Amino acid sequence: VKHIVFGGAGFIGTNLCRRLLKTGSSILIVDNFSNSNPKNLPNSFGESLNVLNVDALDIHNNFEAIETFLDNDSLTVWQLAANSDIIKGVDDPVVDYRDTLGTTIASLQLVRNFATDTFVFSSSSAIYGDLKGLPVTEDFQKCLPISNYGLMKLASEQLIELHFSFVNSTKVRIYRFPNVIGLPLTHGVIKDLQRKLMTKPTFLDVLGDGNQTKPFMYVEDLIDAMLALNDIESNFEIFNIGPEDQGIAIRQVAEQLRNRFSPGTEIRYGSSQSGWQGDVPIYALNTSKSRGFGVKPMFDSSTAVKKVIEEIENSLK
Amino acid sequence: VKHIVFGGAGFIGTNLCRRLLKTGSSILIVDNFSNSNPKNLPNSFGESLNVLNVDALDIHNNFEAIETFLDNDSLTVWQLAANSDIIKGVDDPVVDYRDTLGTTIASLQLVRNFATDTFVFSSSSAIYGDLKGLPVTEDFQKCLPISNYGLMKLASEQLIELHFSFVNSTKVRIYRFPNVIGLPLTHGVIKDLQRKLMTKPTFLDVLGDGNQTKPFMYVEDLIDAMLALNDIESNFEIFNIGPEDQGIAIRQVAEQLRNRFSPGTEIRYGSSQSGWQGDVPIYALNTSKSRGFGVKPMFDSSTAVKKVIEEIENSLK
Repeated sequence: VKHIVFGGAGFIGTNLCRRLLKTGSSILIVDNFSNSNPKNLPNSFGESLNVLNVDALDIHNNFEAIETFLDNDSLTVWQLAANSDIIKGVDDPVVDYRDTLGTTIASLQLVRNFATDTFVFSSSSAIYGDLKGLPVTEDFQKCLPISNYGLMKLASEQLIELHFSFVNSTKVRIYRFPNVIGLPLTHGVIKDLQRKLMTKPTFLDVLGDGNQTKPFMYVEDLIDAMLALNDIESNFEIFNIGPEDQGIAIRQVAEQLRNRFSPGTEIRYGSSQSGWQGDVPIYALNTSKSRGFGVKPMFDSSTAVKKVIEEIENSLK
Repeated sequence: VKHIVFGGAGFIGTNLCRRLLKTGSSILIVDNFSNSNPKNLPNSFGESLNVLNVDALDIHNNFEAIETFLDNDSLTVWQLAANSDIIKGVDDPVVDYRDTLGTTIASLQLVRNFATDTFVFSSSSAIYGDLKGLPVTEDFQKCLPISNYGLMKLASEQLIELHFSFVNSTKVRIYRFPNVIGLPLTHGVIKDLQRKLMTKPTFLDVLGDGNQTKPFMYVEDLIDAMLALNDIESNFEIFNIGPEDQGIAIRQVAEQLRNRFSPGTEIRYGSSQSGWQGDVPIYALNTSKSRGFGVKPMFDSSTAVKKVIEEIENSLK
């Protein structure tokens, strides 16, 4: 099997690619490096790792290169590309239109033209909207995203579901992610706070009142879950992926980071429940479906955060 | 008030613009003429009619021209642009991504930058999906479009609703259209069949089994309804717009056209319920909400079809 990974140079993408390469797979990354750094790519894998540095929507101009790469092997497509700069997408609807939905459109153009064994889409808990912490199951019918990002993830899911309702030969997996953390830390609350703390400031300003509560998952746990769930016998499945707990408060994350990187800094919280417009302050995922298929994350939210803080510390040595 | 009309060169757009011009309004059409013909534009209106021949998503490069046009007047934005070649959008998801959703994204870029009194969006009955003829009301919660077109109209609605949930100074109208007919006939079943019949063929092949049943509305009735509903006192409203009946069968439309344009032709129907993949074979709109506000179309579906066939005949003389 060969793998084409949209967004393969991003945070989750590089971790996935490293794992796939270790098991001897050949990979083609499609990434325009708009939110990622070439130095994060796995190295020393020679011909197994190929990179197409293009905008996803230019994929149709690169079909020859893809044909050469595939060489008639069977294909797994991973659509992991999305806008990861949430704040940027809050204000300008073009950002998620292009980077979150447009990349999905491109992945569908690919599978329309190349026989695909397995298609994997990285969706998000953001599609559910603000459910005040209700741990929601995959069959929830009243999704009402409150961000452009969430809406473009939801539209992606719907286009994928529609496309594959006419194609029975592809295994399709839609995975709805929680907050995923690990190295390389490219974005997100841990990165933001850690970067500020490195300057040893008097005050650390945290967006929102600190009571935002979210499930955090260690990236290797996420990849384990996807690889296991890809393998089960079923054509089309949607899974929430997350830790077994219902999440931890941002306040806890901020305090741990402060204690580790700048103990003298005073944390100041904002007054609003949300970190930013479109942020779902409290959410939880019901993961019993994936657990029913044997998925068992190594780390809970709290341990995952601790582990990543440790990894950051080691990476700075 | 000045009007900016995305898709103002299209079928409904030109009819709307002609009406607005008659009442003395100034108009700026934003259209790339991808599915429309400059000769359909209203003429002899001098400085009242302006045309920006650009892709909608290039709107941000034309803000100076828009500022000059507006000259500090208040603004109504009409987002009528969409892919009108449904079959083209069935196969390639890029088409509706770009032409149906991308044009909405562009209209939101515009309203983010220019104070907008009223924002009007032409949505579609296609957002509801295949409800087997159930006459659905606007508050229906389980929309499940079965075409890329319907999905991109639904995503457009959701992005509009999200955007304006943070902006209270704009009147917003989302109108869900039925099959709208009239001149200039740019696309749709009447145009397709009429064009085939002009060659006096032995057989006329109709897509689907002919039992597809849809509400048809005369374009002037549609424009009357929108102008009336724009005026009511309410900030945000969604309306189904349609005739009072529940539609007529495509079989009836085909027979009327045949009798008028090529009486010797034999009609042959297909075997499938749908005209094409993604076609909702039977749908109906509950229009009691708009009727409650006084909307009363002049023509029912059957009369509207007869009228348009007559107009086509006159246009050929």
